[in-house]
Amino acid sequence: MFEVYETKERIMADNEAEAAKLRKLLRENGTFMVNLMGSPGSGKTSVLIRTINALKEKYRIAVMEADVESDVDARTINDLGVRVIQLHSGGLCHMDADMTARGVNKLGIEETDLLILENIGNLVCPAEFDTGANLKVMILSVPEGDDKPLKYPLMFTVSDCMLINKIDTLPVFDFDREKCLERARRLNENIVSFAISAETGEGMDEWIEWLSSQIEQWRNSL
Amino acid sequence: MFEVYETKERIMADNEAEAAKLRKLLRENGTFMVNLMGSPGSGKTSVLIRTINALKEKYRIAVMEADVESDVDARTINDLGVRVIQLHSGGLCHMDADMTARGVNKLGIEETDLLILENIGNLVCPAEFDTGANLKVMILSVPEGDDKPLKYPLMFTVSDCMLINKIDTLPVFDFDREKCLERARRLNENIVSFAISAETGEGMDEWIEWLSSQIEQWRNSL
Repeated sequence: MFEVYETKERIMADNEAEAAKLRKLLRENGTFMVNLMGSPGSGKTSVLIRTINALKEKYRIAVMEADVESDVDARTINDLGVRVIQLHSGGLCHMDADMTARGVNKLGIEETDLLILENIGNLVCPAEFDTGANLKVMILSVPEGDDKPLKYPLMFTVSDCMLINKIDTLPVFDFDREKCLERARRLNENIVSFAISAETGEGMDEWIEWLSSQIEQWRNSL
Repeated sequence: MFEVYETKERIMADNEAEAAKLRKLLRENGTFMVNLMGSPGSGKTSVLIRTINALKEKYRIAVMEADVESDVDARTINDLGVRVIQLHSGGLCHMDADMTARGVNKLGIEETDLLILENIGNLVCPAEFDTGANLKVMILSVPEGDDKPLKYPLMFTVSDCMLINKIDTLPVFDFDREKCLERARRLNENIVSFAISAETGEGMDEWIEWLSSQIEQWRNSL
């Protein structure tokens, strides 16, 4: 047998008030915000590119690219012709509401229908922080394994949608979609899931359609 | 063009003194410690299993499994017949020297030649904290992409060894090993790298041989 030892309790700052404030500002501007999360290499930027290209005629889109220090992704997004700001976390592993709000203020959202925050590549920390977004979308890629809901439960618990990406690689990995979804649903019975490949485009239509419907529902509630 | 905005400076606790203390304790016990890092799903546990099976006759091995909250990996390692303790970070995204030292004290290392810390799945935070380990080994898996040194530079800067895992999946991913290594070497010219597959066993011998040589060099220096 082995022991289980709790090394440290998480000390959480009061992030909720900041998130509520930002959510109010977004609402006043009619800006719907998506917080896109996932591990490094899960395909956040590739999914983002396909999503932007599918929706940029319909909505005025802006992107906040959060990275530890590089600006590779912001350059890529900038080339798509949407407004983008690079947010540097200065080594931090997540974006909190305060950092997000500063990004929003810097970027300006007066002319923005859809604002997407590409969070820092990490399955742990970003899950803990409400950024003020209307929708939390997480990406799990097939090569990461179907056991991730067991090991990083909070991300699956807090997300509204789980995109299972890189399904074109299913033949080479031992990944059980049903089992993965069942594990995620045990944590969060309302989680919506789409199997996609940002590489081949498979499944992207369903995801885009669902995202649009979420935006429309929210707009009708304003 | 887009703006680059520094949202927050990292506030680092003084971790160095704790790490030095632990390193001294390990030295007095003749225990060589490895800090194994990598993203969720990069294959830390699979590499660990192969490494333990290859070295458990030669060295008395113990493992500290750090996880946010589950104990799936500790159960797996326990089945190999080596001593293991589960460390729960309580939501935190990394192990620091203090948490590691508490784990070491709880586990006891009197009878241990090789102590392996499987850090929390994360390419960002664990890189920032010296745990007191003699060797920092990171795993990057092929599906994550060869651009990761550009986006998560600190991990590559601080690691002694980069294991490129899942090389059996090279045919299905656009991953350039040379480019990846070149990017890592630009950050850390001394980084040692092995291309392996914990699935097929490919490349494991070279890695095991190198790890053994590191342990032996250290023991000879005691």
